[in-house]
Amino acid sequence: MSNVEVYWHEHVVSREQREEKNNNKGCVVWFTGLSACGKSTVANLVDYKLFQRGAHSFVLDGDNVRHGLNAAPKMLMEKHSEEFAKRFGLGFSAIDREENIRRIGAVASLFASAGIVAITAFISPYRRDRDNVRASLPEGDFIEIFVDAPLEVCEARDPKGLYKKARAGELKGFTGIDDPYEAPLNPELRLEAGTKTPDQLADEVVAYLVSKGIVK
Amino acid sequence: MSNVEVYWHEHVVSREQREEKNNNKGCVVWFTGLSACGKSTVANLVDYKLFQRGAHSFVLDGDNVRHGLNAAPKMLMEKHSEEFAKRFGLGFSAIDREENIRRIGAVASLFASAGIVAITAFISPYRRDRDNVRASLPEGDFIEIFVDAPLEVCEARDPKGLYKKARAGELKGFTGIDDPYEAPLNPELRLEAGTKTPDQLADEVVAYLVSKGIVK
Repeated sequence: MSNVEVYWHEHVVSREQREEKNNNKGCVVWFTGLSACGKSTVANLVDYKLFQRGAHSFVLDGDNVRHGLNAAPKMLMEKHSEEFAKRFGLGFSAIDREENIRRIGAVASLFASAGIVAITAFISPYRRDRDNVRASLPEGDFIEIFVDAPLEVCEARDPKGLYKKARAGELKGFTGIDDPYEAPLNPELRLEAGTKTPDQLADEVVAYLVSKGIVK
Repeated sequence: MSNVEVYWHEHVVSREQREEKNNNKGCVVWFTGLSACGKSTVANLVDYKLFQRGAHSFVLDGDNVRHGLNAAPKMLMEKHSEEFAKRFGLGFSAIDREENIRRIGAVASLFASAGIVAITAFISPYRRDRDNVRASLPEGDFIEIFVDAPLEVCEARDPKGLYKKARAGELKGFTGIDDPYEAPLNPELRLEAGTKTPDQLADEVVAYLVSKGIVK
C-alpha cells in the first residue's frame, strides 16, 4: 500500500492549481441581514456578475440548502425514520440555527477549497455562529457582508408575508420581531440596502473582491 | 419588492451555463467499497486526470469532510455545547452513518448543480443510504462505482492498522468485520481493485465519463 500512497500524494490537485485554472481565488462571501433585506437578490447578482467576468462562484441560499443539506424534520421523514428526522432535521431554535450555520459554513469552506467564490445568503442572526465560521477558515477567506436595511424597510417589503405572520404571532422566533438580530461589529463590507439598488450593492461587492485580488 | 424579484429571476446563472463554461457536465461520481479498497486513491487520481483534461471536479472524502461538515461529537465540543455536540456530531452507528451519507449526498448534489464533477470516496456500506442519494438526484446524475477488492486484500493492505484493531475487538462496528458491507446490485461501474493498479482503474472511470459525454 505504501507505493500507492506515495502515488496519491504526487498527483493530488492543490487549491492553488484550481485557483489558477479558475482565474479567481476561493473564498467565502458571507451575506448576513434581516429577512427581506435583499441578501439573496444581491448574492445572485454578484454571482451573475462574477460569472460574466469569467470567475467561478456559486450561491448557497435557502432555495438549495433548506430542501437538502439542512432539511426540516418533516421533510426528512419522507425517506428516514422518525428518530432520524427528529435528531438531524433542523428547525429554528437557537441550537438548530447554530447547526444550520455550521453546516453552511463547512460546505462553503469546501467550495472555497475547490477554488470557488462561495456566496452564502442566510439571515445568520447570531454573531457567535458567524464568528465560528470565520474562525474555521484560513485568514482572509471569510468576507462578511452586512446587508443593512432598517427593520421598517424590510417589514414594508415583506414579499412572503412573513413579518405579517410574525406580528400576528403565527410565526414564533422570527428574527427582528421576537428573536434578536446581532449585527456584525466589524464586517468586511456594509451595504446600505435601504437606499441603494441591488445592482449598486452588487457592484460594491464585486469592486471589493477585485480590490482584494480575489477576482480579476 | 416585485421589481427586485423580477430582476433576480432574469439574472440567475443556470446550471447549463455553468456547465458550458466549465466544459463538462455536473454529476456525482460515488465510489463505494471496503476500507483500504483504494477508493480515495482512485478518486484523487480521477480528479487529477480530469483536471489535466480541463474539466472541473472535486473530491469529497474523509480528509475534508470528517473534520468539518461531519465532525465527531468530540470535535464539535471545541466550539459548541455538549448538548449540541451530542445531537449533531456523527459517530459510526447505523443512524450516524445514514446521516453521514445523507449530508455528503446533499453537498455532492450542490457541487453538481455548480457544474462540477463531484467525486465522493466513502465506504458508504448500506445500500439504502446510497439509493437515497441516487433518488435525490436527477436521472443520470448519480454514477455509482463499486471499488471491488476482496476483504483479504484490503485486510492485508491495512495502511492504518484498522482491520487489526477491529479483529482485536478494539474497534466496534467495523465494515467487513462486525458490520455489513452491502455491495451495489447494479452499479454504473465495477472496478476490479484487487488485481489492477489505481492508474488503470482511474482510466476506466475517466473513459466511462467520456463515453457518457460528461467530460471531453
